[in-house]
Amino acid sequence: MRFRPADTSFYDLFAESASHLVNGAALLAEMLAEGAAREDIAQRMRDAEHQADESTHNVIRRVNTTFVTPFDREDIYSLASGLDDVMDFMEEAVDLVLLYEVERLPSELANQVEVLQRCAELTADAMPRLRTMKDLEEFWIEINRLENAGDKSYRRILAKLFSGKYEALEVLKLKDIVDSLEAAIDAFETVANIVEQIAVKES
Amino acid sequence: MRFRPADTSFYDLFAESASHLVNGAALLAEMLAEGAAREDIAQRMRDAEHQADESTHNVIRRVNTTFVTPFDREDIYSLASGLDDVMDFMEEAVDLVLLYEVERLPSELANQVEVLQRCAELTADAMPRLRTMKDLEEFWIEINRLENAGDKSYRRILAKLFSGKYEALEVLKLKDIVDSLEAAIDAFETVANIVEQIAVKES
Amino acid sequence: MRFRPADTSFYDLFAESASHLVNGAALLAEMLAEGAAREDIAQRMRDAEHQADESTHNVIRRVNTTFVTPFDREDIYSLASGLDDVMDFMEEAVDLVLLYEVERLPSELANQVEVLQRCAELTADAMPRLRTMKDLEEFWIEINRLENAGDKSYRRILAKLFSGKYEALEVLKLKDIVDSLEAAIDAFETVANIVEQIAVKES
Repeated sequence: MRFRPADTSFYDLFAESASHLVNGAALLAEMLAEGAAREDIAQRMRDAEHQADESTHNVIRRVNTTFVTPFDREDIYSLASGLDDVMDFMEEAVDLVLLYEVERLPSELANQVEVLQRCAELTADAMPRLRTMKDLEEFWIEINRLENAGDKSYRRILAKLFSGKYEALEVLKLKDIVDSLEAAIDAFETVANIVEQIAVKES
Repeated sequence: MRFRPADTSFYDLFAESASHLVNGAALLAEMLAEGAAREDIAQRMRDAEHQADESTHNVIRRVNTTFVTPFDREDIYSLASGLDDVMDFMEEAVDLVLLYEVERLPSELANQVEVLQRCAELTADAMPRLRTMKDLEEFWIEINRLENAGDKSYRRILAKLFSGKYEALEVLKLKDIVDSLEAAIDAFETVANIVEQIAVKES
Repeated sequence: MRFRPADTSFYDLFAESASHLVNGAALLAEMLAEGAAREDIAQRMRDAEHQADESTHNVIRRVNTTFVTPFDREDIYSLASGLDDVMDFMEEAVDLVLLYEVERLPSELANQVEVLQRCAELTADAMPRLRTMKDLEEFWIEINRLENAGDKSYRRILAKLFSGKYEALEVLKLKDIVDSLEAAIDAFETVANIVEQIAVKES
């Protein structure tokens, strides 16, 4: 076994990044509720996104100024931007709801948002385990399972959108929002893949 | 010249992965025929996609358990996921045809599918040549040429879709399908680029 | 400080690549003018794109034949393809205007094109500074700022497209064009991120 006197605070920074995603996913869930204060939620989402940006920059700044890193610099960089991507897609979804002035969101979006909430919690739980590289496999397996479930929800929503019940312009708007949520779920899968790659290298 | 006593079965696994793509591209061609048994084809496509997933996981499992790999671990990982991406996009195309309940597919899709079939054959032929790293240049040059031809077909189909002959909702549906095929072709180009990068490093 | 007797002409090749982007962004600006000779501009754009391809291939050829490179081979490869991606998206935008036979382009596109012109100039200015790795931080900071401004323009245009003033098919066409411009801006940000990563490693 190797001993590496590395700056351990990277784990804290990744945990911090992931905690913003838990927050962001909760805001998405709020957004779906009937009579939700959308402007207010969008503002809190923007704040969460700014905080996530801060966390990402803190990671990158520390990579630049730390001599020994706990794992490859490039993997730290990938993981930080992977977490950042999730937040960007979640913020995009909330943003588009306001931008497109969508009145009613299809109830099926709730399934995608539940997947996002579960992915965010699992990711926040997994980040501290990077320290020991133990018990990470269940993380990426479960994220992959959730991504599959999310994909099924996504396809059900698409079938509904194109069933003829919605006008073309409404389909365009809703599809953009649903695509953002799907992209956020896929971005969690990318995070899980990066964690898997790091674990593989370090094992 | 270097001597590397590496686990050679990676080449077999990549050849296996590529053979699933030959199968998938043939199913796409079947799908285009008038009166095709779409449900049945879609089921066989899902099976092909599961087998491709298996191959990908076999590669990754072997990377994790092999001490000396024939080329960089990360390149093996990239190539495996590159091949997997092609299959995902081909399955997506078939899936959307059923999901959107598209009655008639524009005949121009046949050109894209021919490009995919040719790319799949070339890739399946090239994988065993990774062993010697010989005669690979013609592979990536030809894939790039095919990708250019595919791009021309893609643009012709877009022009037709937007010519005013189709309703907006039909355009939306067909564009998604055509985009999946185009993404599959682009994913072959990514595979060719990864092979080029590996060959460059090893030469 | 390290001394590296490396082939310095990589800097010239990157500067050459970036100069094609300055040219391409200027052609986009021409395209927006009332009564622009679109066919002629599209032809010059295709020429610029071919030249950019040449530059990219020159970089890759040189990576293959040079023993000592000024920085990591993979980073050279990433930077070359990053610059190439920008050109591809700019050409795509011009191409779609003709392909979709769009009569009138919304005036808001000018903001996106201004961002692209500024990004292209900054990138062309920054490439020679890779030689000394000095004064590059201002480059990536400014590109990130411009990308944010571009994002605001993009969202304003989307709001207009979906406001109900445009027919669904027209929205589809214009959105594709606006998305290409946005993708070009994002590709500049990716270039800036690659430059940042190179600078981090070399510092």
